[in-house]
Formats: sequence, structure tokens, C-alpha cells
Amino acid sequence: MTHTLKIGLVSISDRASSGVYQDAGLPALQDWFQHALASPWESVTRLIPDEQPLIEATLIELVDREKCHLVLTTGGTGPALRDVTPEATLAVAHKVLPGFGEQMRTVSLRYVPTAILSRQVGVVRGQCLILNLPGQPKAIKETLDGVFAAVPYCIDLIGGPYVETNPDVITAFRPKSAQRQK
Amino acid sequence: MTHTLKIGLVSISDRASSGVYQDAGLPALQDWFQHALASPWESVTRLIPDEQPLIEATLIELVDREKCHLVLTTGGTGPALRDVTPEATLAVAHKVLPGFGEQMRTVSLRYVPTAILSRQVGVVRGQCLILNLPGQPKAIKETLDGVFAAVPYCIDLIGGPYVETNPDVITAFRPKSAQRQK
Amino acid sequence: MTHTLKIGLVSISDRASSGVYQDAGLPALQDWFQHALASPWESVTRLIPDEQPLIEATLIELVDREKCHLVLTTGGTGPALRDVTPEATLAVAHKVLPGFGEQMRTVSLRYVPTAILSRQVGVVRGQCLILNLPGQPKAIKETLDGVFAAVPYCIDLIGGPYVETNPDVITAFRPKSAQRQK
Repeated sequence: MTHTLKIGLVSISDRASSGVYQDAGLPALQDWFQHALASPWESVTRLIPDEQPLIEATLIELVDREKCHLVLTTGGTGPALRDVTPEATLAVAHKVLPGFGEQMRTVSLRYVPTAILSRQVGVVRGQCLILNLPGQPKAIKETLDGVFAAVPYCIDLIGGPYVETNPDVITAFRPKSAQRQK
Repeated sequence: MTHTLKIGLVSISDRASSGVYQDAGLPALQDWFQHALASPWESVTRLIPDEQPLIEATLIELVDREKCHLVLTTGGTGPALRDVTPEATLAVAHKVLPGFGEQMRTVSLRYVPTAILSRQVGVVRGQCLILNLPGQPKAIKETLDGVFAAVPYCIDLIGGPYVETNPDVITAFRPKSAQRQK
Repeated sequence: MTHTLKIGLVSISDRASSGVYQDAGLPALQDWFQHALASPWESVTRLIPDEQPLIEATLIELVDREKCHLVLTTGGTGPALRDVTPEATLAVAHKVLPGFGEQMRTVSLRYVPTAILSRQVGVVRGQCLILNLPGQPKAIKETLDGVFAAVPYCIDLIGGPYVETNPDVITAFRPKSAQRQK
């Protein structure tokens, strides 16, 4: 098995994908992982509009064909008519992990009361963890800071590579029995 | 588009609707909104028994025909056999907003450990936000105090009127880009 | 109606059920109830592998035939492929009580960040409350300590016996109108 973590990054926005404004989600995600990960990783990125069938197809492609171990989406999780990222994510899920949605909202509620409106979910498809993140770069960082500690052990459990983090940014938590000696 | 917020208030109780005791839910809701809202609003009220098909039909009527922007239910969210308000609400939902259920329970848990038993949900149907509230007047007020800050911005996002609140009761939160100058 | 609380205890583990190691879940559950309950109770136990159809059949048997008022499962709630306890529990549910899953995760998050990965749910089937607990004895105790205060009143509401607790371990909470005089 490869030791390189493969991460899919998907920015979902009608306006960014049509060039009305510059996408800020993918750079924010890349930046966070550059600082946070201490083991090898690579990423594939997608910038797509808020179309549910296209989001589903993109997630399936990143998991089933690109063999990503982790996929992060940004955008499309609000209550508006065009916000369909959670529906698309649930539609391709094999297992739902409700703790991620709950905890991402709990973390964001420390910053803004409207975090309650976010419908973000975390799911497993095959050997990949898919998480919906908010659209704003600031909220992306806050959310990953708040929940990523549990992600490396989750990736262990679903059969992915052993991910190590930079403790200046985030300390991965594993039960003792799952920790590898250096 | 109208600037008047139209609110549907639905009290769901076998005993109150059959006259065994006086309904206390609708007055508690009316009272809260009279103090909390600073922009124009009107309400339509319904008092019905815990029958799922009737609850569903009432919610659909209030949203699709009465054109309510916000519907609040009170009662019927517990674990007992006759408590079917959440099932009825989910059955008419276009989108589920899990943050509302989570946060309403979190708020109520500050007062009573049995808040864990409440199954209340928040959903969007068309251009209307529907929230299930508890049955007790005291718990209605606690819950609205705890989550209403996010409601005006939610109504913005689903296409309703710009709702303003009385800051002595509740301060509506909106991102700067969504705030209107006075 | 009987006054004895009948509790079903189900340990779900491929390895414990095949004898690879000793089951620790059932003893931890028995031990907690021996200390916590002050009214009469009896238990029936099952030790089964992580097979969804078998878990479903076991839950149905304990509720419908054994007439348990409360069923606790331990194990099988993580994100791994073989973890299917929540799916089996939801499949036999008449009502879902999302507050239990949320609050059990919130309680466990005080101890380990990876509690976010637990997918445990609480549901009602007929006149029985079914709760998924974690697999580790330490986490079983932490979770029951954190949520059991609401369980006796829940059992009241779904038609079970009046459960009394030992206040040194846990204080059952009921609204005044539901409390019985001694």
C-alpha cells in the first residue's frame, strides 16, 4: 500500500466556477494541509458549480477512480436553493459519520451564530473519508483546526495510509494501540 | 416582495385541541414575537391534534397556500407513541438543517437533562423555515432565545423579507455583506 | 404491568464472539447497572459478531419476544467496514432520538477527540429504548454516566416501569408532574 495520502479538494460554487470571482476555497485548503501534514501527501483539485449530479459524479470519480483517501469539499452547505453539497455527499455515502457535522457546527458556533445554518456532513465511501467544509477561507481553517485531530485515526480505520501531522498546527489523536513507534 | 414577515404558529396537542386543557403554546409564541421583532409581521395560528397526516397537511397549507416565511410548531416532539411532529416535519421538508435540532437540544440541556429526549428538527420547505419547538412555554422562550439569532439571515437566504429584531430580546446576526444600512 | 425493568445487553464483536479475546462489554454493562439502579431489574445478554442481519434479528427478539424495556449494545459503532451496529439499530427503529447520539458523542469528546468517529444512535422500538454504547469498558461507563439521567423518564414515556436510581451513581431526572411520591 502507498504511504502517500491522496487528498481530493473540491470547491463548489456557481460563481467561482464560472469566473465571476476568484475561487478562494482551494488555496485555503492547500495552505492548511501544507502546514498541517508531516507525512507525504498529494492532492487533486476540482472547481465545479452547485449542480447535484455533477457534485456526486465528481466525488465518485475522486474516490473510486482517483483513489483519494480523503476528500474535502468547500461551499454549498447553506440553506439556499442552490446549496446541495450535503445532499450530493449523502447520496454517494456508504456510511454517515454524524459526529463530524455536529462537531464542525459546534466549532463554528464559537465564531458566528449563523453556523447553525450549515448543513455539512462527514461520510465514508469505500476507503475514503469525505468532509464538507464551509466556503469562507477563515471558516475552513477554523473547522479543520477543530476536527482534524480525529481524521488520521479515521483514515487508519478505513484502510488508508498512516498520516502524521505537524504538532504546531494539529496533534493527531490515536489510541495507544494504534500508535506507531518512530 | 412584501416586507411583512408572515409567521405560521402551530400548536400540536391531543388534549389542548380537544379542549381538555387550555393551549399555552400559541400565547407563548405570540408573546415572544411581540417582544422580539422590530420589523412588520403577522401570524396565522392552528391548534391541532397529534395526527401525522393532519400535521403534514397543516404545514403544507401554511407554506404553500398561506405563504408563511417562518412556521413554528410547539408540542409532539418527545419519544411517546403519539409524538409525531418531527416525522411530519421531515415528511414535508425540502432541506433538513440539522444544526437547529442540535442547537435547540444543546440550549435546553442547560435547563433539564431530559432535553436529550426532544426530537425537534429544523427544515426548509420552499421559501419557508419550519422549526419544531418544545411544548412548555418556558422551554419555548429558552429555545427561541437560544437559536433565533440565526433565523433572520436564514430567511434572507431562502428568499424571505429582511427581518429586524429588538436587541433587548435578541440580536440578529448577519455577515457584514448581508447587512442593510438604515 | 411488571415493576421489574428488563434490560437486554448485546455485545457486538467479531473477535469476542469467536473467542479470540474475552468480551469485556457485557461485564462492564452489568457492573454499571448493579451500582446505578435502585429498583428491581433483570437482564438478558447476547454476544454476537458484527453481522447486520444478526444484529437486527437479535434486537427484534429482545424487544418483541423478550419484552425488554431497555436494550444497550456495545461495539460496532466506528467508521470501519465491519462496524454496522448503527445501521442495524436504525433498521429496526420506530422512532429515532437524535439527542442520544449527539450527547453521547459530546460526553465522550471530553475524554478523546476521536469520539467524533462514533456513529452511535438512540432509538425507540415499540415500548423499548435502544442505545448504542462504545466498545471500551471505560467509555461505556463515561457514556452511561453522561446520559442515563434522562433514561428513566424516557422509559416512563414509552410505557415501561418506573425506574429508580442510586443517587451516588446517577440522579434520574423527571419533571415534577412525573415524579412519584415515596
